[in-house]
Amino acid sequence: MSAASRAKRRDKDLDVQVFEMGDFVSYGACGIPYFIAGRVKQLDDLVVITAEEFESKRGIKVHKRHRVEKISPNDRRLMVRRLIDDHTFEVSYDHLLIATGASPLVPPHLDTELPGVFTLRGLAEAARLKEFVVNRSPREAVIVGAGYIGLEMAECLTDAGLKVTMVEMAQKPMFLMEDEIASLIVNELAGNGVKLMLGVGAQSIQRADGKGLVVQLSSGDSLKTDLVIIGIGVKPNSELAKDAGIELGVKGAIKVNRKQLTSATNILAAGDCAECYHRILGRNTYIPLALAANRQGRVAGDIVAGLNSEFPGVLGTAISKVFDLTIARSGLSMAEATDAGIEAEKAVVSSNSLPHYYPGGARITSVVLIDKKDGRLIGVQMAGKHGVGQRINTWATALTAGMSLDEIAGMDLAYAPPYSPVWDPVLVAAEVANKRRKA
Amino acid sequence: MSAASRAKRRDKDLDVQVFEMGDFVSYGACGIPYFIAGRVKQLDDLVVITAEEFESKRGIKVHKRHRVEKISPNDRRLMVRRLIDDHTFEVSYDHLLIATGASPLVPPHLDTELPGVFTLRGLAEAARLKEFVVNRSPREAVIVGAGYIGLEMAECLTDAGLKVTMVEMAQKPMFLMEDEIASLIVNELAGNGVKLMLGVGAQSIQRADGKGLVVQLSSGDSLKTDLVIIGIGVKPNSELAKDAGIELGVKGAIKVNRKQLTSATNILAAGDCAECYHRILGRNTYIPLALAANRQGRVAGDIVAGLNSEFPGVLGTAISKVFDLTIARSGLSMAEATDAGIEAEKAVVSSNSLPHYYPGGARITSVVLIDKKDGRLIGVQMAGKHGVGQRINTWATALTAGMSLDEIAGMDLAYAPPYSPVWDPVLVAAEVANKRRKA
Repeated sequence: MSAASRAKRRDKDLDVQVFEMGDFVSYGACGIPYFIAGRVKQLDDLVVITAEEFESKRGIKVHKRHRVEKISPNDRRLMVRRLIDDHTFEVSYDHLLIATGASPLVPPHLDTELPGVFTLRGLAEAARLKEFVVNRSPREAVIVGAGYIGLEMAECLTDAGLKVTMVEMAQKPMFLMEDEIASLIVNELAGNGVKLMLGVGAQSIQRADGKGLVVQLSSGDSLKTDLVIIGIGVKPNSELAKDAGIELGVKGAIKVNRKQLTSATNILAAGDCAECYHRILGRNTYIPLALAANRQGRVAGDIVAGLNSEFPGVLGTAISKVFDLTIARSGLSMAEATDAGIEAEKAVVSSNSLPHYYPGGARITSVVLIDKKDGRLIGVQMAGKHGVGQRINTWATALTAGMSLDEIAGMDLAYAPPYSPVWDPVLVAAEVANKRRKA
Repeated sequence: MSAASRAKRRDKDLDVQVFEMGDFVSYGACGIPYFIAGRVKQLDDLVVITAEEFESKRGIKVHKRHRVEKISPNDRRLMVRRLIDDHTFEVSYDHLLIATGASPLVPPHLDTELPGVFTLRGLAEAARLKEFVVNRSPREAVIVGAGYIGLEMAECLTDAGLKVTMVEMAQKPMFLMEDEIASLIVNELAGNGVKLMLGVGAQSIQRADGKGLVVQLSSGDSLKTDLVIIGIGVKPNSELAKDAGIELGVKGAIKVNRKQLTSATNILAAGDCAECYHRILGRNTYIPLALAANRQGRVAGDIVAGLNSEFPGVLGTAISKVFDLTIARSGLSMAEATDAGIEAEKAVVSSNSLPHYYPGGARITSVVLIDKKDGRLIGVQMAGKHGVGQRINTWATALTAGMSLDEIAGMDLAYAPPYSPVWDPVLVAAEVANKRRKA
């Protein structure tokens, strides 16, 4: 919808049509956990613009409950199925944008059709889960996967009164966070009554005798529960593109250049179905996050409207709330650096979010990763119960500009006791990392 | 003390001696308003390191209650007066750092010796004011000056139960903030019961008949009150340097280069008594703020210890809390730009601190100033009741790096509903300012 809006704004004479399989367009999917928790009151609150408003206000025709079943790049045609009556028809295009998003990864041996088993993707699924939580009054939940979605759901289901157990195959939650940050997450979950089982996979989900479900674990144990959420990641919806002969790239995402153009003439792709350019790696990767998806959509809209535009790239910047703990990152993790052939070293720095004398402050743990070869800053992770929120963006800005640790440590950042110590945690972390490097 | 500590750390054989007129060294002066409000419990909480700890832990000799009365640069000697018994003696030095700070500006016609009249500088004055508030139970206060200190005191005295009236000569509070920000301050004060009188000066302060004080205003009115705070700014304590023939610079501050060296051989100056280099102006200015003072001290310590070091400069970054409103800035204001011969234009952008559906967000007003000539970003101001805190540092970082608005608008900043909308207010402001410029 970002692309549609942008293209139409750039060229009001364009005939822009959107085919959407479901009922909703343009909604804040990241708000779903908070809808389950009750912090967001109504599902409709998550909708930014309705399909009807796209038509009436922006002149964009939205075909809801229509599935595009086939793309024929050579004759620039689509085959579309109207789901309400299974009627199929063809549509021709000058430019086609594929914005099919991503789907939850589900291990094939887990039965997601069972009542009480949910993945989190889309508003319809969110409504189903909310209905289940409200009407069935589940008391316990098992969350499979301790990534962003799993952790946010752990907080939100706990908030909704459930007792939560998390099951994670890896030896830590959030596998792209360094151990020093992951251990803070472990503590935060424990402190909020969430049981976290690491190094354990879910092997099957079955109906329990009587009421509820049983999750069989790789450890041999089993968990009886009322509700299962599967949140082990997503995979790009690229089958439609693949079937049309369009080249796929990293992790099966649709290969695109920085103009969002695919390998097929006049076909673009944007959002969670597509690759995205990584500023630090200098090549495409697959990081399906909301800002990049929106921005790619705008670039695609510009290109379709004949303007020059280029996707600036991502840094892998991300932030998440886990109960009272904020975790954030920008740039590469140690594992990503190693994958990219970069020998990295890290400095772990702890500092206060506020002056020692001002109430409300907390420790901030910063992990600063630098390239051993040249001391270049390549990534930062932070966690803490206060003041992490926008601080990660200071690092993201420094990473964007390619600033050295010397330059970062010398910045004139804002100071007043209610907001920061004289030496902001960013300055302290940059200085310590810089000293360690020079030592 | 930053300089003393740094020099000693760099060269442990250095004999470092400090002469301090008062009783306190190394304290958080910016915390004083919050001590008056009771948020900081004890005055001692503001002390970072005591004189005794400097001696015992860092090997730095601190002479409290000693006033340096004369510097003789040619024979590298000081004349020092021990205030406890008025004994004077001479001290020789190899290197001398002048770190005499600044003093409150007080119009000569205002009698600051009257009981109930206070300026805010140093812990002794803070203790006097706190004692007055606790023991005399003043019910009303007049604050002369609506700059940082005046505004913080307005909040803190209101918090302490006083009815506050502010008197400001200019037509707006915080004269270096743009009108769009200043008007938010005006509203915030009114909403919290503070009476703000603009375009009015205090002409005299006298004892009232019976109890209290009377402040005579330039408007002809007078205000009866229990307590008067004068907070109209500070002036550098540069007389000692001037008397020694050391060159003064901007606003009477001691002229220094970026190694903190003054015009006199082996004499350095740092902190609120000295000029500081401004990154955007490319020349020295006078902005007496804590971070720059600390940093200049470290540079001076390095230089004295024979190392190479240079003050990186300031951007004029500042932040302040006015009740629930946060106001922040980095870079030049329109007035500063005009003074520097830069023709600037500004974009005023309003955006939400959080997604519309997530509770707790508020509007953020951003004013983005650019150089009309080349579109270069030269300054940003922000105000809002949520999410302004560290966001100003994203701008400060961009200003440090000299990033274009295009680059800023394209940054990968952090997004999750509890922290930010998909399009962070920084991205929105950069984009709108950029569009306006190109239009």
